[in-house]
Amino acid sequence: MKLSSTKLQTQFQTLKDNRIFEFFVIFIIIISALEIGAKTYALSENALRVTQFLDIFITLFFLVEIVIRFVAESDKKTFFKSGWNVFDTLVVLISLIPINDSEMALLARLVRVFRVLRMISVVPELRILINSLLKAMPQLGYVMLLMFIIFYIYAAVGSFLFQAINPVLWGNIAISMLTLFRVMTFEDWTDIQYETMEVYPLSWIYYLTFIFLTAFAFLNMVIGIVVNVMEDEHAKARALEHKDEPTLADLNAEIKELKTMIRALKES
Amino acid sequence: MKLSSTKLQTQFQTLKDNRIFEFFVIFIIIISALEIGAKTYALSENALRVTQFLDIFITLFFLVEIVIRFVAESDKKTFFKSGWNVFDTLVVLISLIPINDSEMALLARLVRVFRVLRMISVVPELRILINSLLKAMPQLGYVMLLMFIIFYIYAAVGSFLFQAINPVLWGNIAISMLTLFRVMTFEDWTDIQYETMEVYPLSWIYYLTFIFLTAFAFLNMVIGIVVNVMEDEHAKARALEHKDEPTLADLNAEIKELKTMIRALKES
Amino acid sequence: MKLSSTKLQTQFQTLKDNRIFEFFVIFIIIISALEIGAKTYALSENALRVTQFLDIFITLFFLVEIVIRFVAESDKKTFFKSGWNVFDTLVVLISLIPINDSEMALLARLVRVFRVLRMISVVPELRILINSLLKAMPQLGYVMLLMFIIFYIYAAVGSFLFQAINPVLWGNIAISMLTLFRVMTFEDWTDIQYETMEVYPLSWIYYLTFIFLTAFAFLNMVIGIVVNVMEDEHAKARALEHKDEPTLADLNAEIKELKTMIRALKES
Amino acid sequence: MKLSSTKLQTQFQTLKDNRIFEFFVIFIIIISALEIGAKTYALSENALRVTQFLDIFITLFFLVEIVIRFVAESDKKTFFKSGWNVFDTLVVLISLIPINDSEMALLARLVRVFRVLRMISVVPELRILINSLLKAMPQLGYVMLLMFIIFYIYAAVGSFLFQAINPVLWGNIAISMLTLFRVMTFEDWTDIQYETMEVYPLSWIYYLTFIFLTAFAFLNMVIGIVVNVMEDEHAKARALEHKDEPTLADLNAEIKELKTMIRALKES
Repeated sequence: MKLSSTKLQTQFQTLKDNRIFEFFVIFIIIISALEIGAKTYALSENALRVTQFLDIFITLFFLVEIVIRFVAESDKKTFFKSGWNVFDTLVVLISLIPINDSEMALLARLVRVFRVLRMISVVPELRILINSLLKAMPQLGYVMLLMFIIFYIYAAVGSFLFQAINPVLWGNIAISMLTLFRVMTFEDWTDIQYETMEVYPLSWIYYLTFIFLTAFAFLNMVIGIVVNVMEDEHAKARALEHKDEPTLADLNAEIKELKTMIRALKES
Repeated sequence: MKLSSTKLQTQFQTLKDNRIFEFFVIFIIIISALEIGAKTYALSENALRVTQFLDIFITLFFLVEIVIRFVAESDKKTFFKSGWNVFDTLVVLISLIPINDSEMALLARLVRVFRVLRMISVVPELRILINSLLKAMPQLGYVMLLMFIIFYIYAAVGSFLFQAINPVLWGNIAISMLTLFRVMTFEDWTDIQYETMEVYPLSWIYYLTFIFLTAFAFLNMVIGIVVNVMEDEHAKARALEHKDEPTLADLNAEIKELKTMIRALKES
Repeated sequence: MKLSSTKLQTQFQTLKDNRIFEFFVIFIIIISALEIGAKTYALSENALRVTQFLDIFITLFFLVEIVIRFVAESDKKTFFKSGWNVFDTLVVLISLIPINDSEMALLARLVRVFRVLRMISVVPELRILINSLLKAMPQLGYVMLLMFIIFYIYAAVGSFLFQAINPVLWGNIAISMLTLFRVMTFEDWTDIQYETMEVYPLSWIYYLTFIFLTAFAFLNMVIGIVVNVMEDEHAKARALEHKDEPTLADLNAEIKELKTMIRALKES
Repeated sequence: MKLSSTKLQTQFQTLKDNRIFEFFVIFIIIISALEIGAKTYALSENALRVTQFLDIFITLFFLVEIVIRFVAESDKKTFFKSGWNVFDTLVVLISLIPINDSEMALLARLVRVFRVLRMISVVPELRILINSLLKAMPQLGYVMLLMFIIFYIYAAVGSFLFQAINPVLWGNIAISMLTLFRVMTFEDWTDIQYETMEVYPLSWIYYLTFIFLTAFAFLNMVIGIVVNVMEDEHAKARALEHKDEPTLADLNAEIKELKTMIRALKES
């Protein structure tokens, strides 16, 4: 029993690592994406029936594919340690739940949209890209916290001062934060400003300081990322460049050795 | 007396540096922030009473905390040399002023909003971030002065030419500067342009040159910051890299020494 | 025959590389551009007749110029290997097709607009610029694919949820992608948001996450280009700097040789 | 006579280089700027008279200052070789022209606005900033030319296709270029797009390709500046760092000399 299981595992591993199988998986994901796109159009009866068959086929294909990848894995425990595997399994499992209720139909559609995200988990280059983005996140944590504090304080002040002027924009701290995000994107921000300036003529100070502070914090964030990325690249370049070359310390050691040799020569 | 004071000071210093105490202070600041946020919603009678009790508790807690930090400081003079300590003390003292008057209620609320800023003075990473931003400021001084001169000249010209067309936007030099800031953020700037182009058909030159000049000055500012930050990083990296390694000058000295030894060998 | 052909080729090559001929070609391209610009104005009968003569002259001139360049080329096969030559030939050939039909007049005009692009194929500095842009493209491929996946998923979700609210903006996945591009450029995006928030009050999450994701992916793309360009510049600078200088490895070899010499000295 | 002239020159040079005199000039420029700003407000009769006296005083002061600087210059020919001196002289001379005509009053006001620009010619740090901006210009020339070609071609196409739809936006090539600049700043660009999409449903391709091309060219320009600035900084840093340190080539020469010495030792 053990032997046959191992044999199956080896076979599945060969299949999984097969380039043609890989491209077929990507092809099915693209089909799945196109099907989702097609569903946003008004379809004929026949086309609808085709999408339903496609739906079942894609669901089954993804189920088979995940099973193959699970069986191919030699250490079953490490399989679920990879976030991408957990994500793939969840997407497959959720789309297996039978949904007949018309109210749930929308939810079912949304879940199927996430199948397109499987493109990222299948193409290694995209996975690397996402991983590098996630790695940069914690370094940006404090700048984001700072930005949130700026937003929170301005939203509180804005809500206290301008609530009576326009409750739709400044009704409470949550709405105010959304309004401030709008101001940050420069989207019709002067309309908001002119409205409050009629009551508080100096309220332009509120908007200008907010724009400067957030722009500055944002700039800081961007520069932080650039510097981090550059440092990594430089470190890599440096490591690569000096791999086979002796360091100055090596040379120093060599010269020290020379001295000892000459000293020995003198004494002899 | 002196002895007991020193004992108290040591005890408070231990308390101040305690990790649990630090987290408790941050926790109270978050509670204070949430309370401020809650106040922007329409609250029930009971909830209002809770916020009043919370207000008194937080005010007292912050008072006690600042006293602990002051007593813990061995050199009382240096305490107020730190801008953050002065800021903390001011926020606490101002929120101690009893305000019963309903007209002043808004002011009291605003002062309490600044308590959230204490988050920055308490979390060391945020303090470092703000310090580095403040340090970058003087280097940007001249670019900002240049930008102000551009704004001032264009505002003066705009006010002279377009005052009669739309006094709301070009009434005087201050209003014109605000309008130009709006143009810089591209916020409905073409509406302003089309309005003046009806009288002065060539006024698009005014807007285009202004946008190019400010964009260029802004770009210059950003590049200035990036270059500064990068230079600092490089200097740090270089210092770190070469710490334990001999310099080329060291090697040169060693080789010179070798020569002297060989010369001595020859003469012997 | 062979000889005279070679002679013609040499003569044409001399003509082609002549600075005055080059400037004359650029001059004709500028004339062609000005003629195209002039045609967008309402012209008098006489002016129209001038443009018609100019049109014929420019078409013939470009035909002659391309023939000269083709004859001047020693290896006829390599001529069409350059994308720029193919482009030039196509522009000339298409503008040779006689168009009398009034319906096709618009098409004829559009083809003539592409003559201005010949400016890029003629000025070497612009050709280098475009080539370097095209070279950077494949490196950006995966970031662009990631961005397209983000757009596709959000457009599918947006189309499913908001189709009933505003079919003009969310009618199908293609229209939704155009709407999302509009949101990415911050163009009246809050109007779209407020509209859907009336039905789904939490739909601000949809817009905010979309803006953050695309901004992040875009930022990543920009940084990617910057890092690439910088790396190239550094590599160039490093190669230039160290051209005549010995490497540390060279020095190491020299010192090793010294040691052997001293050892030989000792043994003698 | 020659002697006294030289004496005056030395005296004026001492005055010109005097820190207090420098600050006084800056003070007068600020006064002049404030006066220009004040004139944009509705002033009382008395205030108006004050500004008239101020005007005369500032004009005379600037005249005296430029004379002092001219006399202080030892080589009169080099004085007008500096662009800043020519600019200062022109501003002073033009403001000397007496303007009584009410129609010319606006022009007189505008000329006086340029006095504020003298701030840049007086503060050395601002002059350096402007010089470095001007130096970066020619390097950007080709990217700007490329951008202009993109604008020109799109404006011609836009004018041909959309002229009939909205002559206010696409009337001729000049108006179309202004409209395209508006599209580039994302200012209500979708309104323009939706209007043309009603006639040409595929015209979104026109706008999207335009936005991508200009964004790409702009990005290229920014990166070009950043790389240039960085290269300069690096070159400076490198030059500074290695000033007193021996190069690898120096070390190599030293080691070669060592070898000769040992060889001589062996032979003796």
